[in-house]
Amino acid sequence: MERLLQSCRIQSQLVRECLAEFLGLYILIGSGAAAQVITSQGTHGSYLTMQLGSALGTVFGIFVTRGVSGAQLNVVWSMSLWLLGRQPWRKVPLYALSHLLGAFLGAATVYLQYYDAIQVFSGGHLSVAGPNATAGIFCSYPADHLSVWGGIVDQVVATALLLICCLAVEDRRQGLLPDGLAPVLVGALILTIGLSMGSNCGFPLNPARDLGPRLFTFIAGWGEEVFKAGGGWWWVPIVAPFVGGLLGTLIYELLIEVHHQLTPQSPGQESEAVELQDLCVWPGLHQIF
Amino acid sequence: MERLLQSCRIQSQLVRECLAEFLGLYILIGSGAAAQVITSQGTHGSYLTMQLGSALGTVFGIFVTRGVSGAQLNVVWSMSLWLLGRQPWRKVPLYALSHLLGAFLGAATVYLQYYDAIQVFSGGHLSVAGPNATAGIFCSYPADHLSVWGGIVDQVVATALLLICCLAVEDRRQGLLPDGLAPVLVGALILTIGLSMGSNCGFPLNPARDLGPRLFTFIAGWGEEVFKAGGGWWWVPIVAPFVGGLLGTLIYELLIEVHHQLTPQSPGQESEAVELQDLCVWPGLHQIF
Amino acid sequence: MERLLQSCRIQSQLVRECLAEFLGLYILIGSGAAAQVITSQGTHGSYLTMQLGSALGTVFGIFVTRGVSGAQLNVVWSMSLWLLGRQPWRKVPLYALSHLLGAFLGAATVYLQYYDAIQVFSGGHLSVAGPNATAGIFCSYPADHLSVWGGIVDQVVATALLLICCLAVEDRRQGLLPDGLAPVLVGALILTIGLSMGSNCGFPLNPARDLGPRLFTFIAGWGEEVFKAGGGWWWVPIVAPFVGGLLGTLIYELLIEVHHQLTPQSPGQESEAVELQDLCVWPGLHQIF
Amino acid sequence: MERLLQSCRIQSQLVRECLAEFLGLYILIGSGAAAQVITSQGTHGSYLTMQLGSALGTVFGIFVTRGVSGAQLNVVWSMSLWLLGRQPWRKVPLYALSHLLGAFLGAATVYLQYYDAIQVFSGGHLSVAGPNATAGIFCSYPADHLSVWGGIVDQVVATALLLICCLAVEDRRQGLLPDGLAPVLVGALILTIGLSMGSNCGFPLNPARDLGPRLFTFIAGWGEEVFKAGGGWWWVPIVAPFVGGLLGTLIYELLIEVHHQLTPQSPGQESEAVELQDLCVWPGLHQIF
Repeated sequence: MERLLQSCRIQSQLVRECLAEFLGLYILIGSGAAAQVITSQGTHGSYLTMQLGSALGTVFGIFVTRGVSGAQLNVVWSMSLWLLGRQPWRKVPLYALSHLLGAFLGAATVYLQYYDAIQVFSGGHLSVAGPNATAGIFCSYPADHLSVWGGIVDQVVATALLLICCLAVEDRRQGLLPDGLAPVLVGALILTIGLSMGSNCGFPLNPARDLGPRLFTFIAGWGEEVFKAGGGWWWVPIVAPFVGGLLGTLIYELLIEVHHQLTPQSPGQESEAVELQDLCVWPGLHQIF
Repeated sequence: MERLLQSCRIQSQLVRECLAEFLGLYILIGSGAAAQVITSQGTHGSYLTMQLGSALGTVFGIFVTRGVSGAQLNVVWSMSLWLLGRQPWRKVPLYALSHLLGAFLGAATVYLQYYDAIQVFSGGHLSVAGPNATAGIFCSYPADHLSVWGGIVDQVVATALLLICCLAVEDRRQGLLPDGLAPVLVGALILTIGLSMGSNCGFPLNPARDLGPRLFTFIAGWGEEVFKAGGGWWWVPIVAPFVGGLLGTLIYELLIEVHHQLTPQSPGQESEAVELQDLCVWPGLHQIF
Repeated sequence: MERLLQSCRIQSQLVRECLAEFLGLYILIGSGAAAQVITSQGTHGSYLTMQLGSALGTVFGIFVTRGVSGAQLNVVWSMSLWLLGRQPWRKVPLYALSHLLGAFLGAATVYLQYYDAIQVFSGGHLSVAGPNATAGIFCSYPADHLSVWGGIVDQVVATALLLICCLAVEDRRQGLLPDGLAPVLVGALILTIGLSMGSNCGFPLNPARDLGPRLFTFIAGWGEEVFKAGGGWWWVPIVAPFVGGLLGTLIYELLIEVHHQLTPQSPGQESEAVELQDLCVWPGLHQIF
Repeated sequence: MERLLQSCRIQSQLVRECLAEFLGLYILIGSGAAAQVITSQGTHGSYLTMQLGSALGTVFGIFVTRGVSGAQLNVVWSMSLWLLGRQPWRKVPLYALSHLLGAFLGAATVYLQYYDAIQVFSGGHLSVAGPNATAGIFCSYPADHLSVWGGIVDQVVATALLLICCLAVEDRRQGLLPDGLAPVLVGALILTIGLSMGSNCGFPLNPARDLGPRLFTFIAGWGEEVFKAGGGWWWVPIVAPFVGGLLGTLIYELLIEVHHQLTPQSPGQESEAVELQDLCVWPGLHQIF
């Protein structure tokens, strides 16, 4: 028996990390609360519960993943860590693929769990727009008032804010958080963005989280309208977050992190000095400048 | 006097644990907010407050219990811990019985506290369905749109998610949480499930939590309709969570826990190495394979 | 200058504690959110925000007080600590008086801050009942459906739950919480009770918190109706919480605390053994049996 | 490359702190949720989400800043720390200027992100009052019922409460909080004030946070009405918070902090004794008395 389990044990650290990132995104999507609010027509939730469900889903996605891969869960964050020289570049596409697969299967699970409810709510007709639209359960569509440029600005600003705050939470020169607080803070950050930047286009922020469920709805019966809607909106939440992520990383590094003193301030933190120097140098930007 | 108290002191660790589990479930049920929202017709709460009340009730059920029995509070979780070889099998039925008794008395206390309100709201007629139904205060009933298979899928998915996340929170290889954070996280998890998987059938997740109050309503005046409603729904929240619990345990173990390296990574965690090996072997599955 | 401050410094520990308890209750009342929700007719809040405001006010009342007097803030809790032999009896009435004064002045401050809003909302007529009633901003009144016995049961159950959970949070044999978590948990407990036991009579739970503001409204213009309303309701939230507090203390002690082993289980907790024995004996009950 | 970054590194501690305070206020404003709630006419949020967004924005403003300048983020708090002799006076105006600039640019970013939504909601007419008013997204205006004196009282009371509670959270004689909890508590405090003292005039509390966005709206098209509205309301949230801050500081110091014993109570805290003495003396008040 134990030999059987030993054979299940995967030696490759990278495969383990991809499995974890896959499961993290799966939970993040699978616990999204939009299906409940939309199909119950607001009797079982509100805009706040929808955002709270998403934020808490992110928290648990992180808790499931953090000990293995550090719970990146967003390729923009992976890219930022690579730019900052904190991980090799080849992790970025592999994690992105794991995220895409996890998001796709998460969306499939939501559809399975809400199959009855979606059928009744939509009258059996899976549509992207109109009063009985259900595509918004799975991925982002722009509000009527939003222009394409407005959507790009929205996603750039929101992702920049996400990255600035994540970098601050992770920055040990700002203070050492107790274990387990950082995931909760990231969830609170997602909630903040949802409550303050969610009405333009639903704050996708995460290319794989948006594309994976969109591909699922394309296959599962919503059809090619999921790519046509909003004037071909689908590429915005894939491209704009990278721009915002880069901008946010630059802002945080140039305004805060680059100015940290290299010598530790209190004697109790000496053992971290070497590691902190690693965090403060910025080799990844060789590729940019 | 102290001799009197000494005589009250129970030596048996198992009886102490059952008392604690009993009290934990009692608090979990007794602090449920559904009675308030339903009898006040929404003037004193909303769907969110109902879920928040339930989630926080769980948190305090755990705080009352955790130092004695580890606050299992759900026989599915007890089963999972037994399968993973972390506790003997005979605790599972004893805890389940304690849960059933605690949930039954918790429901009785809610009825006592809301006796006036329920009489006025229901016009003195205790019914399971219709506009003045009050049975939903105590245990789960499926929404109109839900088929039996849909209900089983819903409970399997939700309990699997519960177990995956609980195992991750308890998994010390993911990181050592500060004391007192884990109960809060479990409450947040209950809230997440309530906000994202609650509209199909009210996320019972816990056989004793559903059956105990159902038995109470059967006796207290709602009659045999509590077992007939929803096409004989009552057995689904008893059976499906076990399937979901098993599934969730397998997913977490196969995707995450079984791959943890047996040797500790940082020197500061050496003292835990032995215990962590215990957590990583999986003797309970001898019984399955 | 420093000599002037030295002259302000009060040597008596008891006076310092009473000052702190006074300020704690003052903040607890002063930050109550009922005035905002009622006078804005729900446009600036809801039932949830009212409860959240109260719960968070309690949290900050505790943070202001905890380092000086341990933040008792409720004479029922003071009584319970005395019964358990953890403080001398003479603190109970002194703290109660400080609470009464703090609650009275807190209510006065709320009236001052919302003077314009209350005048406009009530049309200048300060009434206890009716559509423009404003007395409910300050203290508890029973719902129409509630009988006096129902109110007593409600307060006994709610205060018992409060005490059980507070004793569990404070019980170091359940686990040592990080500093600062206990106040937040007590706030969460107040929120739980507000969301699940608030619709009968607004969960006063605390004699001084209810009587102080009631006395203020009696003087400030609402008149003797504040004592006549609800069939002479005013004495219930003064008497019933003591019964509930006693019941809750007995339940927690008999089901959980009295059974704790006197010897510490892990070597790391040896230094606490003596103190824990102090917590486990129960000299205060000499007076009862 | 690294030489380039070295040249970006700013040696002056004061400039670094001002950059951090600037970024903190920028995030605090930029993540405000009022734009979303107002332009979506409540479909994407409610009063609670607006307050929660503001409070969480404050939390992340603090996390971005705390390791560099201690995250003062409010000139009233800076003034209080100077009065208590905990920082030199020249930081107060410099921080205030950084706050003003951060708040101005934060408001500009909100306008940019919600440009489409504001145009559609307001029909292209940027107005301060009326059903399509949008100036309230950016800074405070008094409710119709509020007199100028009522507004001054409101701001004095609210800022006093803010200062009392912030001083208590920062007061290490009340207990040593785990790193990272204090910012969350300050956010919870902002939420408390928003839920209980927000309906009179929207709890500005912070001169720069109110003036910066007001200046932006003055320039961006709302015109001089932003200064005329509410009977020339604009100066109240600039002046009254200083009075309230002074009052709150005095209350906390005189009722709590000045009475702390100078000798540490437990041996484990000896190493802090010197520092705590520093906190307890009050040299800044030389300037007042």
